[in-house]
Amino acid sequence: MKKLKNILLDIKKLESAASVLHWDQETYMPEGGGAFRAEVLAYLSLMQHQMATGQKLKDELSLHIDYNTGELVNITLSEKEKQLVRLVWKDLKKQVVLPDDFVEEMSKHTSATQQAWIKAKKAKDFSIYAPYLEKMIKLKKQETEFLGYKDKPYDALLDGFEPGMTTENVAKLFGGLKERLVKLVEKINTVQQIDDSILQQSFDTNEQWKFGMKIAEAIGLSMNNARQDISAHPFTIGFHPDDVRITTRLNDKMLLSGLFSTIHETGHAIYEQGLNKEYFGTPLGEAASFGIHESQSRLWENTVGRSKEFWTYALPILKEHYPQLKEVSLDDWYRLINVVKPSMIRVESDEVYYSLHIMLRFDVESMIINGDVNVNDIPKLWNDKMKEYFGITPKDDSEGVMQDVHWSFGGFGYFPSYAMGNLYGAQIMEQAEKEIPDLWKKVSKGKFLPLKKWLNEKVHVHGRFYDPEKLIEVISGAPLSADPFMNYLEKKYKEIYKL
Amino acid sequence: MKKLKNILLDIKKLESAASVLHWDQETYMPEGGGAFRAEVLAYLSLMQHQMATGQKLKDELSLHIDYNTGELVNITLSEKEKQLVRLVWKDLKKQVVLPDDFVEEMSKHTSATQQAWIKAKKAKDFSIYAPYLEKMIKLKKQETEFLGYKDKPYDALLDGFEPGMTTENVAKLFGGLKERLVKLVEKINTVQQIDDSILQQSFDTNEQWKFGMKIAEAIGLSMNNARQDISAHPFTIGFHPDDVRITTRLNDKMLLSGLFSTIHETGHAIYEQGLNKEYFGTPLGEAASFGIHESQSRLWENTVGRSKEFWTYALPILKEHYPQLKEVSLDDWYRLINVVKPSMIRVESDEVYYSLHIMLRFDVESMIINGDVNVNDIPKLWNDKMKEYFGITPKDDSEGVMQDVHWSFGGFGYFPSYAMGNLYGAQIMEQAEKEIPDLWKKVSKGKFLPLKKWLNEKVHVHGRFYDPEKLIEVISGAPLSADPFMNYLEKKYKEIYKL
Repeated sequence: MKKLKNILLDIKKLESAASVLHWDQETYMPEGGGAFRAEVLAYLSLMQHQMATGQKLKDELSLHIDYNTGELVNITLSEKEKQLVRLVWKDLKKQVVLPDDFVEEMSKHTSATQQAWIKAKKAKDFSIYAPYLEKMIKLKKQETEFLGYKDKPYDALLDGFEPGMTTENVAKLFGGLKERLVKLVEKINTVQQIDDSILQQSFDTNEQWKFGMKIAEAIGLSMNNARQDISAHPFTIGFHPDDVRITTRLNDKMLLSGLFSTIHETGHAIYEQGLNKEYFGTPLGEAASFGIHESQSRLWENTVGRSKEFWTYALPILKEHYPQLKEVSLDDWYRLINVVKPSMIRVESDEVYYSLHIMLRFDVESMIINGDVNVNDIPKLWNDKMKEYFGITPKDDSEGVMQDVHWSFGGFGYFPSYAMGNLYGAQIMEQAEKEIPDLWKKVSKGKFLPLKKWLNEKVHVHGRFYDPEKLIEVISGAPLSADPFMNYLEKKYKEIYKL
Repeated sequence: MKKLKNILLDIKKLESAASVLHWDQETYMPEGGGAFRAEVLAYLSLMQHQMATGQKLKDELSLHIDYNTGELVNITLSEKEKQLVRLVWKDLKKQVVLPDDFVEEMSKHTSATQQAWIKAKKAKDFSIYAPYLEKMIKLKKQETEFLGYKDKPYDALLDGFEPGMTTENVAKLFGGLKERLVKLVEKINTVQQIDDSILQQSFDTNEQWKFGMKIAEAIGLSMNNARQDISAHPFTIGFHPDDVRITTRLNDKMLLSGLFSTIHETGHAIYEQGLNKEYFGTPLGEAASFGIHESQSRLWENTVGRSKEFWTYALPILKEHYPQLKEVSLDDWYRLINVVKPSMIRVESDEVYYSLHIMLRFDVESMIINGDVNVNDIPKLWNDKMKEYFGITPKDDSEGVMQDVHWSFGGFGYFPSYAMGNLYGAQIMEQAEKEIPDLWKKVSKGKFLPLKKWLNEKVHVHGRFYDPEKLIEVISGAPLSADPFMNYLEKKYKEIYKL
C-alpha cells in the first residue's frame, strides 16, 4: 500500500503545483502572463493524466484489485484501504474509458463553446451559442455511453459530481422539496419586505476586509494554514490541508455580498483544512463530493451566518467597523440579511429561492441528456419553467438560459450539487443540534469551535470513504431527505415573516 | 531543431511552474504551507532533472552534436542554432557527470550545513559551523574533479556562474581594480561625509511603495508583464519574459534601502523581460551569466539611480511624496545617496567599498578550493584580509566569516559575479554613452527608453549566445577590463568630494 500511496502522492504534487498556478492566475498574475501560463497548466495536466493512467499505477493497483473486474484480490487490507483501492480503481477506469481522440475533441470544443457563450451572452443572441451547445450536448451524450450507466444516461454525469446519485433519486428528493418550497414562497410573497435603504450606503472596503477576516478566523479558519486574497469571482482552492486559499471581491455598495462570500468560502476552506492528512493524495483525503463541499459552505454562510444567534455575536463587532449602522436593531438586521425576493439570476438568489433555480436547471438538463430536445427549443423550455417556478419571464436569453457558464464547459450534472448541498447541510445541522449541547447559545457567544470540531469528525475526516448519500445516513442515522431543509426554512421564515 | 526545442520548452514549463511556487513561498504562502511546498518543489526538481538528462533529449541532441566529443554533426545549422546545441550539450554533460549518490549526498549535506550556519551565526560560534563547512569544502573539491578544469579546480566552479571565467582571469581583473580602489578609498576617507540626519526620519511606507512603482515603470518595466510584492529579502524571478516578478521590503526608517532595492530588482526584471521569446526554453533565451544579470541591476541602481541626472528628474517627484524633503537641494541629495563608508557587512556596503568585499571573498575561497586551508584557519584568514582591505576587524565571526549564506549552500565561485557585475556594467555604460546621443540629458528628463532599448539590443536579446567576457567585447569592442569601472568611480567621487 505504501508504494501505491506514494504514486498517488506524486500525482497529487503535480495537481497541487497546478493549483498554485491557478490561484496565482486569478489573484496576482499580470495580464501578459496569461498565454504562457495556459501552456504550463496544459502541460502539468497532461503529465498528471499520463501518470494517473500509467502502467506504474496500474501495476501497483493490480496487486490489490483485479483491474478488469474491480474485484478485490488483496484480502489483508483494512476496510479503509479496501475502499481506497476501490475508489482509485473507479477513478482510473473513468479516465481510461474515454478514447484519446474523444478527450482531445472535447477539450477543443470546450474552448470554442466557452468563447461562443461569452460572445452570445454579450450579444444577447442565443443563435450564436446554439450550434456549439448542440455539438456539446452530442459529445456529452457520447461521454455517457463511454462511462456507462444502469438506468439513465444523465446518471453517468451526475456520478462525476455526486458519486452514486441517479436521475431518479434527485428527482425524488427535488420532488419532496418543490411542493413545500413553492408553498413557502407563495406565503412569503404576500408579505412586505423590510426597507433595505440602509444597505444602499457606501461601506468602506478596507473595513469590509478587516471584518471578514475577523469572522473567518472566529469561525475556525486556521490562518497559519490559509489566506484570503481578492479575485474577480470568489473561490476556494486547497493545495494541501496545511495551505488553503480563499478569495473574495469587495464593493463598497455591496456590504452583504462581500461578507457572506467570505463566510461561504471559509466554509469550503474549513472542509479542505479538515481533510485527513494521513491519506492526503488518496481518495480518502479528498472531499466526498461537490454537494458535500457545498453543504459546508452553505451551512456556514446560511444556517449559521444568517442566523439571529450568529448576529447576536457579530452585529456589535460589525458596528465597530461601521458606526453608521449603530442604530440598527438585531431584529431589523436579521430581517435585512434574510430578505426573500424572486430573482432572475441564480447567483443573486436568496436561500429560499436558490433551490428553485437549481430544480429548473435539473429539469432542463436531465431532459436534454436523457431525452431528445432540439437545441433551439431550450430557451423556451427554460422560460416556461421560469414562469412556472418564479412567475417571471426573462427579458432575453442572456438573463435566461445563457446566464450560467456551466453548460459551455460541458458541466452537465453539476447543478444538482448546489441544491444537494442545501439538503445535506440541513440534515447535518439537524444532527449537530442534537449532539452539540447548547449549540445556538454557543454560536450567540461567538463560540464556533464545537461545531467546527464536530464537522471535522463527522464529515471532513472521512474524505470519500462514503458516497454522499451514505455519509449523510451515517451522520444522521436516517436516509437523505428534503425534510430537514424544508423544516429549517419553514421554521425560520415563518418566524421572520410571522406567516 | 523544432523537436529539440519542444523538449527543452517542456522542461522549462516545469521550471517555470516551480518558480511560481518559489515566488508564492516568499511572498504569500501561509507559514503552515512550508512543509508540503518543499515536497512539491523537490518533486518538480526531480522531474526536471530526469527530463534534462533523459534519453529523449540525448537522442534528439545527438542528431546535431556528437554526444561523446561535443563535435557538431549537423552542418546545416545556423550560427545561433550551433551555439544553442553546444550549450545544451554542455549543460547536459555538467548534469550527467555528477554521480547520483554524490548529488544526493551533496543535497543532504547542504540542508545540514545551512541549518548549522544559522545556528552558529546566531550563537556567534564558528566551531558549530566548522565541521559542516569542512565537509562541504571536501565535497566541492570532489565536484571540481567530476566537472573537470584546465588549470585550477576553482575554475570548474566559476564556470557555473561566469561561463569561461578562470581564477587567473578574475585575479588579473581584480588586481587592476584593487590598486586604484584602495587609493580612492584612502582619499575619500580624508573627507568629512555629509550629515545624513534628514534620512533618519520616518518615511511612510505607502508613499515609498507608490514612488518605487512609479520609478520602476518610468525606467521601463512593462507592468502588463510584471508585478512587485513584498518579501523578507528582495528578489527577481521570471516565469517567462511576459511574466516577471520583483519584490521589495519597506521600512519607514530606511527610505534609501527600499528605493534602491526596487531600482536594483527592476534592472534584473528588465533583463528578464528583454530575453528573446523566440528562444524561450533554450540557452539562447536565458541570461548570459550571474554577473551579466548583476550588471543590469547595478547599472540601473548605481550608475543611473545614483546619478545627479537621474535625481534631476526624480527628486521633484520624491518631494511630492515627502513634503518633509522639500528643502533638500539636488546637490545635497546627490551626496546623501552617495555616502561612502567602510562597512563590516557586504550587503550594507556602498558602490565603492562593495568590490573590496568581493575581492576579499575571492581571495579566501579560491585559496580554499585551489589550496589546502585548514577549516579552523578560515576565520583568521578572513579577519586578516578585512584588516588589509578595510582597516577594521570584525568583533566576532558572525559579522566576519559567517556573515554570508553562500558557502553554507555550497555556492563557492558565486561571489566574483557580484563584482564582475560592476565591471561589466561600467564597460557597457561607457559604450552606451558613446552610442546614445545625449544619454545623460535624456536621463535628467526622465527619458529612459533609449537606454533600455539599447540594453535590450546589445545585452538582453543575445541570451547565452556569447560567454560574458566575449559579450562585453562584442558590445564595447575592447576586452573586459577594470578600467571603465574605476574611471567611473574616480570621476564621480572626485567630483562629489572635491578630491
